Amino acid sequence: MVRKPTKEDKFSFGLWTVGWQAADPFGTVTRPALDPWEYAERLAELGAWGITFHDNDVFPFDATDAERDRIVGRLKDAVDNAGLTIEMVTTNTFTHPVFKDGGLTNNDRSIRRFGLRKILRNVDLAAELGATTFVMWGGREGSEYDSSKDLGAAFERYKEGLDTVAGYIKDKGYDLRIGLEPKPNEPRGDIFLPTVGHALALIAELDNGDVVGLNPEVGHEQMAGLNYTHAIAQALTAGKLFHIDLNGQSGIKYDQDKVFGHGDLASAFFTVDLLVNGFPGGGPRYEGPIHFDYKPSRTEGMQGVWDSAAANMEMWLMLAEKARAFRADPVTAELLAEASVAELAEPTLAPGETVADLLADRSAFEDFDAEEAGRREYRFVELYHQAMRHLIG
Amino acid sequence: MVRKPTKEDKFSFGLWTVGWQAADPFGTVTRPALDPWEYAERLAELGAWGITFHDNDVFPFDATDAERDRIVGRLKDAVDNAGLTIEMVTTNTFTHPVFKDGGLTNNDRSIRRFGLRKILRNVDLAAELGATTFVMWGGREGSEYDSSKDLGAAFERYKEGLDTVAGYIKDKGYDLRIGLEPKPNEPRGDIFLPTVGHALALIAELDNGDVVGLNPEVGHEQMAGLNYTHAIAQALTAGKLFHIDLNGQSGIKYDQDKVFGHGDLASAFFTVDLLVNGFPGGGPRYEGPIHFDYKPSRTEGMQGVWDSAAANMEMWLMLAEKARAFRADPVTAELLAEASVAELAEPTLAPGETVADLLADRSAFEDFDAEEAGRREYRFVELYHQAMRHLIG
Amino acid sequence: MVRKPTKEDKFSFGLWTVGWQAADPFGTVTRPALDPWEYAERLAELGAWGITFHDNDVFPFDATDAERDRIVGRLKDAVDNAGLTIEMVTTNTFTHPVFKDGGLTNNDRSIRRFGLRKILRNVDLAAELGATTFVMWGGREGSEYDSSKDLGAAFERYKEGLDTVAGYIKDKGYDLRIGLEPKPNEPRGDIFLPTVGHALALIAELDNGDVVGLNPEVGHEQMAGLNYTHAIAQALTAGKLFHIDLNGQSGIKYDQDKVFGHGDLASAFFTVDLLVNGFPGGGPRYEGPIHFDYKPSRTEGMQGVWDSAAANMEMWLMLAEKARAFRADPVTAELLAEASVAELAEPTLAPGETVADLLADRSAFEDFDAEEAGRREYRFVELYHQAMRHLIG
Amino acid sequence: MVRKPTKEDKFSFGLWTVGWQAADPFGTVTRPALDPWEYAERLAELGAWGITFHDNDVFPFDATDAERDRIVGRLKDAVDNAGLTIEMVTTNTFTHPVFKDGGLTNNDRSIRRFGLRKILRNVDLAAELGATTFVMWGGREGSEYDSSKDLGAAFERYKEGLDTVAGYIKDKGYDLRIGLEPKPNEPRGDIFLPTVGHALALIAELDNGDVVGLNPEVGHEQMAGLNYTHAIAQALTAGKLFHIDLNGQSGIKYDQDKVFGHGDLASAFFTVDLLVNGFPGGGPRYEGPIHFDYKPSRTEGMQGVWDSAAANMEMWLMLAEKARAFRADPVTAELLAEASVAELAEPTLAPGETVADLLADRSAFEDFDAEEAGRREYRFVELYHQAMRHLIG
Repeated sequence: MVRKPTKEDKFSFGLWTVGWQAADPFGTVTRPALDPWEYAERLAELGAWGITFHDNDVFPFDATDAERDRIVGRLKDAVDNAGLTIEMVTTNTFTHPVFKDGGLTNNDRSIRRFGLRKILRNVDLAAELGATTFVMWGGREGSEYDSSKDLGAAFERYKEGLDTVAGYIKDKGYDLRIGLEPKPNEPRGDIFLPTVGHALALIAELDNGDVVGLNPEVGHEQMAGLNYTHAIAQALTAGKLFHIDLNGQSGIKYDQDKVFGHGDLASAFFTVDLLVNGFPGGGPRYEGPIHFDYKPSRTEGMQGVWDSAAANMEMWLMLAEKARAFRADPVTAELLAEASVAELAEPTLAPGETVADLLADRSAFEDFDAEEAGRREYRFVELYHQAMRHLIG
Repeated sequence: MVRKPTKEDKFSFGLWTVGWQAADPFGTVTRPALDPWEYAERLAELGAWGITFHDNDVFPFDATDAERDRIVGRLKDAVDNAGLTIEMVTTNTFTHPVFKDGGLTNNDRSIRRFGLRKILRNVDLAAELGATTFVMWGGREGSEYDSSKDLGAAFERYKEGLDTVAGYIKDKGYDLRIGLEPKPNEPRGDIFLPTVGHALALIAELDNGDVVGLNPEVGHEQMAGLNYTHAIAQALTAGKLFHIDLNGQSGIKYDQDKVFGHGDLASAFFTVDLLVNGFPGGGPRYEGPIHFDYKPSRTEGMQGVWDSAAANMEMWLMLAEKARAFRADPVTAELLAEASVAELAEPTLAPGETVADLLADRSAFEDFDAEEAGRREYRFVELYHQAMRHLIG
Repeated sequence: MVRKPTKEDKFSFGLWTVGWQAADPFGTVTRPALDPWEYAERLAELGAWGITFHDNDVFPFDATDAERDRIVGRLKDAVDNAGLTIEMVTTNTFTHPVFKDGGLTNNDRSIRRFGLRKILRNVDLAAELGATTFVMWGGREGSEYDSSKDLGAAFERYKEGLDTVAGYIKDKGYDLRIGLEPKPNEPRGDIFLPTVGHALALIAELDNGDVVGLNPEVGHEQMAGLNYTHAIAQALTAGKLFHIDLNGQSGIKYDQDKVFGHGDLASAFFTVDLLVNGFPGGGPRYEGPIHFDYKPSRTEGMQGVWDSAAANMEMWLMLAEKARAFRADPVTAELLAEASVAELAEPTLAPGETVADLLADRSAFEDFDAEEAGRREYRFVELYHQAMRHLIG
Repeated sequence: MVRKPTKEDKFSFGLWTVGWQAADPFGTVTRPALDPWEYAERLAELGAWGITFHDNDVFPFDATDAERDRIVGRLKDAVDNAGLTIEMVTTNTFTHPVFKDGGLTNNDRSIRRFGLRKILRNVDLAAELGATTFVMWGGREGSEYDSSKDLGAAFERYKEGLDTVAGYIKDKGYDLRIGLEPKPNEPRGDIFLPTVGHALALIAELDNGDVVGLNPEVGHEQMAGLNYTHAIAQALTAGKLFHIDLNGQSGIKYDQDKVFGHGDLASAFFTVDLLVNGFPGGGPRYEGPIHFDYKPSRTEGMQGVWDSAAANMEMWLMLAEKARAFRADPVTAELLAEASVAELAEPTLAPGETVADLLADRSAFEDFDAEEAGRREYRFVELYHQAMRHLIG
């Protein structure tokens, strides 16, 4: 039995996760809606440290300012009483019909202006509530039909929108960083910024990119058949892994949002291994919350909601324990050595070596025995199997 | 009947395309090997303007310098006689066993040094032959097993390798730019730089990134379920679409390398539309060669090889004609207007408008009728269907 | 310009297609609900011959008998006045929470009994309205979690349910055949009967399988990366292609339900080619309605709804015309001959030839020149390209 | 530490697995070829009980009868000495160019006759060597290009070929059953019989289908995004699970053939659970060998070959132990009860109940409280998580 989660674990949940009422493309809701503070209080009891939300998880799209203040105040009280942190806030620019062609990249300029205003307003709320991450998921930024967008203009507008929001955060002096959340498709046929790579690339072109990073979601990368651990590794080396969304996905299909580890279990293990233990040779580490973005399946009632919330945390704790033991095992160390894993951290050129030096080094090419080198053993399979022994042993 | 291709069309083929002997994971070769110049001569007869190759498409991995010079010289003569251009050269760092764990990111430092030397040597050859693009496909840079690589170190080594090659090109003053070719998997389980996005992101971190851009391949993006036209649009707006690889792929499966347009035909149409007509609102254009990277299917004999080479060019010409007519049609113009496609090129903030101005604009938010805006028609389906009418009408 | 559709084309639409209000997993409805007869009347004006529906497309889940009769009667009048046919009826066993773990394979026996009653009741309605096909899509029959179902029992219950319904149809003497509609996933993680193959296999085990066949949907097969034309060919040869669902899908992702031909266009062409022209060597033909099961995209208003409905029919007519011309072209005939396509219809053993005869035929093996035969040309690429010339020429 | 494998475990390996020399579409061989008996002997030392092979894993395509007899005899001696069983034999109808368009469904009738002869000849060998399963993988039966095959004729020829082989086995009185091995694609773009379902469906149409069943491979089903455990469950209920091919695959991509459990680990656990423990409610069981069809990755040398062979068996043993404990745990039993898993084995109609009885049962419909039933808890997530606790706890 693994230990119970504590606040030190920094587990955090979106209110929309346990709050999902389970309407799907072919079915109506199967669960009641609770008040936002009810979800927060229960999550605290289960061991969560933080909560996160979209504006309209808490108050309606058309709430008056007074309504909004009242509801947000009530939530803030509950959060404070429960000792929770509101660590991230995000904006819903996808549910209402007005966003059916997107917010920041809607073909309709008046809707882009409206979307930007809704986001900016929410930036103020996020800062006011003490959140340090502001996630932007552009789920409606995209298209189903080639020809429906001026693609060059779409990227320009996306950059304009992000730079406007990021610039506003900097002007206001908010202690807030933006986390972009890529996704390949659903609800649009092809979403702009489909993967971690595309988002990192766009950030590199921003004027205010210094406060813009990533919030990669396990299932979203896997919906493109990509390796999530590779993705967050690239984000880490770029200094851009600001936040994470952990959940479970079973391959390339609709967005499943299962419990973390309930999809590709082995991949979840290696994700935890990286987040907990870092790169073998050191380097940038992730220091943020352990944030779950999952949905209790539609078959579940309220018991299943709380079961599944707890399952995310227990899964993390089980995997973290296994990952630490895997790294600490001397057999692992031997296999890592046989695989030359540490050698990859050594620069290919020696300190001070120039290209001219390399070109002059006959041992590197002219006298190098490529046939012999091609026969070397790496024992990658045995190393992986060693990880499996720890995971399921 | 579409017209015959001419040199003005700038059609170019890899020697490894028509030269593929059709060994696959489950079968041996079905076609003879010709000499490299024989492929070049025949391609020129079919209407090609340029050819491209990997070093070892032309001379063996273990060729002596004399052999290499002799064979390259013989090819150069044939190319000159045929009026062809050698527009791109690339390096084979994937066939020989020495590269089984990659070149630039091999765990074994001595192999990384060997790989770098092989590439640098080929840069000289590319420059000598007048090529202006130097493609780098890191097909073996990756892994099948999480745990087999220090991922942070892998990205550092990849950057070191690219910066070394790019720096060498700049030092030498070669008129050559690097085109990275992303691919999600095959032959490795997860290749680093799996998509156009990931490659753009890495380039943004290079010291010598100014001479490094992209060579995106249709099928490679589609193997991750991504929209190729979106991908090249993002590369174009980043100023990084240096070269293209056109071919055909039928969905998420092994790399098929079919004739261009023989996979997702409609997507091929919109790719040609973008390359030929540019973004609707103007902006960066692709000016490079129309390069085909396909494989004549294993069922085909030499007749099928030449049939299929010609089919690529004919497909481009047919689609280009259709794309021009689609854009020129007044019905298209009306539908583009109904869809507000041009409006996406207008900045969301007016010229000189500040965020404060936007926040003060009540028409943008407080007085904006989101319900009404949510009901607007875009007629995206009709616009797309209009394209289909041109494509197959 | 292609001609207008007529009743002779036997185009048919589900009321749920044009009637979809466009709520998706991340967004609320963007279009109003019309009365069922309004959709029917408009479809008739556009050229449709038939309509189809789920029980709860027409009357609510909890309608009293009186309500149900009134609404169905009103629809029937409209249908008759418009000269439409109600060619297929199907049962909604997926929207209501009661079916969250399925109908026929729900772990809860009382729900299975309820589901069966709902279906049987709808069989009577289908027969009463003159429908000849009764589609059963088991979209909720499946699981997200291995361990949640006794899989052996699930297949037994599925067979029991189908045999009960099929037996009832036969007992009643209804002129009605069941069409199973496979789908790999969504809304369940793994749906039982994920493909045409699995459904055909289950039918073969039924007691009353003679009245049970298939209603394959284009997008559903493509969601598993499978070739739809191959799928309906296998169903045809098994005598089980009772009905079809035409629409468009762009690869392996969520169920898109785009307009027919707006996904994989070339595949749509070959599907039409098979349905219109039959197998090259003759054999079973599809004689049923041309039924569209698509959804007007969420970006579309009511204008877009009718645009898109018309686009399905226009697409079919355009493709049918092209497919006829492709088959009639003497160049096609030559290429088919070079590819030995007709030869595949010749039995491998000669009429009357026994296995012993084959074993004694030295020309078949001992004296057969496999090397020479391995070099033969098929020119499959040129044949396909010839089809492309017709499709887009 | 898990115990060592013994002959009682009935582990079996294809000679082509450890014998794979690691040529892939982009690389040449990285390992030497041993003699077939050397693989067999080493497998026996590692704990294997059986071996399997293709004809041309043992002797060349163009071997004379004398050569063939000599090599087979030498292998048989080694097998006998090592106490191994040759449990399955299969025919290579995919490597040689002659089969580039398939064997049984080649457009060229003379090649179909040649293919049939090669298979029949191998049936005799299989029987002679005491094999009880004869696998037929039709990897080249398919197409890349719609239009290249008469699809109706292709299915007829496939049936003719299978019936001929099955009829021969029966006529000869061989104690041999055919196991079809489905695969969706690779090396052909679309392979006929892409999934377990399609193969079951075709078998149902055979004259001699009684001796024809399935040999489903983990990775092949997963290449279509399908659930392998569901697939073998359907085959089991149809009485057709004759043999299995265990290996590992990481999602929808090229055929990876990794070690069993090194792909989707959780799915592997539930596969073992079904094979070891059977359906919860009883029913047909798999009694055949535990056969591995994997490839030691190209990065591995001979040490990696033997490591990985052992890893397959160790993985099975670890998972089997976990699966037994999972089923035996009283907490599991409680959760299975809450999920009503056993209830699915109860027929929906009571013993002797007729449809008329069901229709007359008001409790089943008129008085059934669907709202209440829609709110019931299944706790599927907790049940699954309980399995995970056993798997990694």
